Amino acid sequence: MLTVDEAVARLLSRVEPRAGIERRGPAEAFNRVLAEALVAPVAVPPADNSAMDGYAYRRADAAAAGFVLPVSQRIPAGAAPAPLAPGSAARIFTGAEIPPGADTVAMQEDCVVAGEGAHATVTLPAGVPPGDNIRRRGEDIALGETVLAMGTRLRPQEMGLLASLGIGEVSLYRPLRVAVFSTGDELVEPGGVLGPGQIFNSNRATLAGLLAAWGMTMVDLGMVRDRPELIADRLREAATGADLIVTSGGVSVGEEDHVKAVVSRLGSLDFWKIAIKPGKPLAFGEVLGVPFVGLPGNPASVFVTALVLLRPLLFRLQGCTGASPVPVAVPALFSRRAGNRQEYLRARLAGEGIEIFPNQGSGVLSSACWGDGLAVQPPGQAVQPGDKLDFYHFRSLL
Amino acid sequence: MLTVDEAVARLLSRVEPRAGIERRGPAEAFNRVLAEALVAPVAVPPADNSAMDGYAYRRADAAAAGFVLPVSQRIPAGAAPAPLAPGSAARIFTGAEIPPGADTVAMQEDCVVAGEGAHATVTLPAGVPPGDNIRRRGEDIALGETVLAMGTRLRPQEMGLLASLGIGEVSLYRPLRVAVFSTGDELVEPGGVLGPGQIFNSNRATLAGLLAAWGMTMVDLGMVRDRPELIADRLREAATGADLIVTSGGVSVGEEDHVKAVVSRLGSLDFWKIAIKPGKPLAFGEVLGVPFVGLPGNPASVFVTALVLLRPLLFRLQGCTGASPVPVAVPALFSRRAGNRQEYLRARLAGEGIEIFPNQGSGVLSSACWGDGLAVQPPGQAVQPGDKLDFYHFRSLL
Repeated sequence: MLTVDEAVARLLSRVEPRAGIERRGPAEAFNRVLAEALVAPVAVPPADNSAMDGYAYRRADAAAAGFVLPVSQRIPAGAAPAPLAPGSAARIFTGAEIPPGADTVAMQEDCVVAGEGAHATVTLPAGVPPGDNIRRRGEDIALGETVLAMGTRLRPQEMGLLASLGIGEVSLYRPLRVAVFSTGDELVEPGGVLGPGQIFNSNRATLAGLLAAWGMTMVDLGMVRDRPELIADRLREAATGADLIVTSGGVSVGEEDHVKAVVSRLGSLDFWKIAIKPGKPLAFGEVLGVPFVGLPGNPASVFVTALVLLRPLLFRLQGCTGASPVPVAVPALFSRRAGNRQEYLRARLAGEGIEIFPNQGSGVLSSACWGDGLAVQPPGQAVQPGDKLDFYHFRSLL
Repeated sequence: MLTVDEAVARLLSRVEPRAGIERRGPAEAFNRVLAEALVAPVAVPPADNSAMDGYAYRRADAAAAGFVLPVSQRIPAGAAPAPLAPGSAARIFTGAEIPPGADTVAMQEDCVVAGEGAHATVTLPAGVPPGDNIRRRGEDIALGETVLAMGTRLRPQEMGLLASLGIGEVSLYRPLRVAVFSTGDELVEPGGVLGPGQIFNSNRATLAGLLAAWGMTMVDLGMVRDRPELIADRLREAATGADLIVTSGGVSVGEEDHVKAVVSRLGSLDFWKIAIKPGKPLAFGEVLGVPFVGLPGNPASVFVTALVLLRPLLFRLQGCTGASPVPVAVPALFSRRAGNRQEYLRARLAGEGIEIFPNQGSGVLSSACWGDGLAVQPPGQAVQPGDKLDFYHFRSLL
């Protein structure tokens, strides 16, 4: 059996980014992946500006005048200041540009104004050090600095950052198109009626949710009756429109299943045994040049293998870098016997540790609804209360 | 000044859920909020079924026959089994329904088959306890059990769970419509050219990203010139189509700003001072019956106040319950003087603790791009290395 790390490395070695590139504005970039490195075309802030409502002046002029200066101009945010008249102060507001010639700002609470309009004077505090209350040009971002690496998946704050740099459009990978496919006579779509021996198809909805969370597009190929010519037609259709084809169930055991044979005929298919639980069998291949992944069929197996094995593959195809989730080490509040596969336990944070759902069966999806994330029990290792396990919060996998 | 908790409680007391209800299928429900409590209409699994590929039999019959039985039927997943012929075993596959009369399944690896077809017999292992390898009807979910509460925000696994229960459509709150609005002569939209004293408008992109992450719809009212009649027209338009109106900047200080006066005229507006940093001023009111929130204008202030103050308000309006983020207590790797407001430090996890971005200025959005989350420094409390601070991962706020 392959270890989970070996399986992920092998999957990543088989594919290259496939998504094309399109231009979009910062407000449309949520969850999208940068297809270029981003170099700051302007400094942020673009000019020295005031951090406070107050008065701007030249420190040396103020000291020479006993800290009482005439008020020579008024600078709201957004106005272009005139050069500061020598021996004067300027009324200034938060965010407004410092006038040439001023080097210090005093907060308005520390100043006393006398007179009005052209006759106003201000008494400034003597203790303000030169340079105080000024936000410097480029203090946040210097002109020409690389601010975001190619392959970055954009969060709201990166969207704001792009906008703050004045970038109207940016190169993004278009969302990956993932074709999802089910066969199996025991499956009934939600809303239908179960016959004897049948179960509802939950895997399409689970995968639809994961793909939505990852910012990808599901190409829904629906359910296909288990006849070779129908499967082949559907796979050909998928290969023209999708970047990856995913199926769940059917490809590892079922004797009546024709997906295996058809995929092998149209391309190639390998079967891997992976030391992962839930899960274990994974099929990987290609159909007419499009990568093909066959996940196991049980609901919790699909959920876990999609997070642990499919996610890295999809992010690689999407052009995303640096998206490996980082686990936290949390003490177990439970004990558990050793197994021979790496087990991804549906778990939740409770007080100072993690507890696990009592039924870790591969058919039990409610374990994942109950849980906050996955705790990892390595193969051959028993768990005692207090042992620290790697814990991946579900949010860190989305 | 109000504490942050007081401000949030006051905001929540002012609004009720506003979003209408619509019916959607499980695969379309990502990030949507349940508008009904969900009771299981079926048991999961719907019938006793096999956890393994193997043989199903009655334990007492097998013992009586020295654990060698004829194979009387073959039950793939999805087939309706016949009652088990007395004194026989059934070939069975994972997920297939247990035939009436059988009470135990032995794994195929532990069985030896002789003969073929109608003449096949199987030698069963003697040590399998009665009931083994059978997944019981309702083991995951019992018929009539409440599985998801009204107000639950749906993740991929809840989508799968809905589907596994056969639910074709479910009542969901439609996505909240949030009108976003900017005024301010110093603002230039990204893609434009900065004049003296001007800055690019980052807040719309930041808010667009947050609303997308929260599964809500942004109604983009764009930038409005600071003239009362234009502002009034735009606010009236917003009030007919949106559930909430959000503006950033302008409403707290700017002497030339007309938003304050217009909002007060069309509805009402209060100004709150909140002990939060970055941030502090928040305007809350209503325009023609639609709630109105005025956030501060600086990029990092908008980001932090949107996560800390706006998020609970929006989730309440959306009908979402139980969405309060839970902080983790993490040791500080830094020291910091006490302040008089609760400070939300842009921070990241590093080794066994959290470090903070050197420049915590309210204009510095790159702090949030650098960071993983917000560390909370309570008012009046200095921080020494090793002190535990509440840390909210950004993902837990999205």
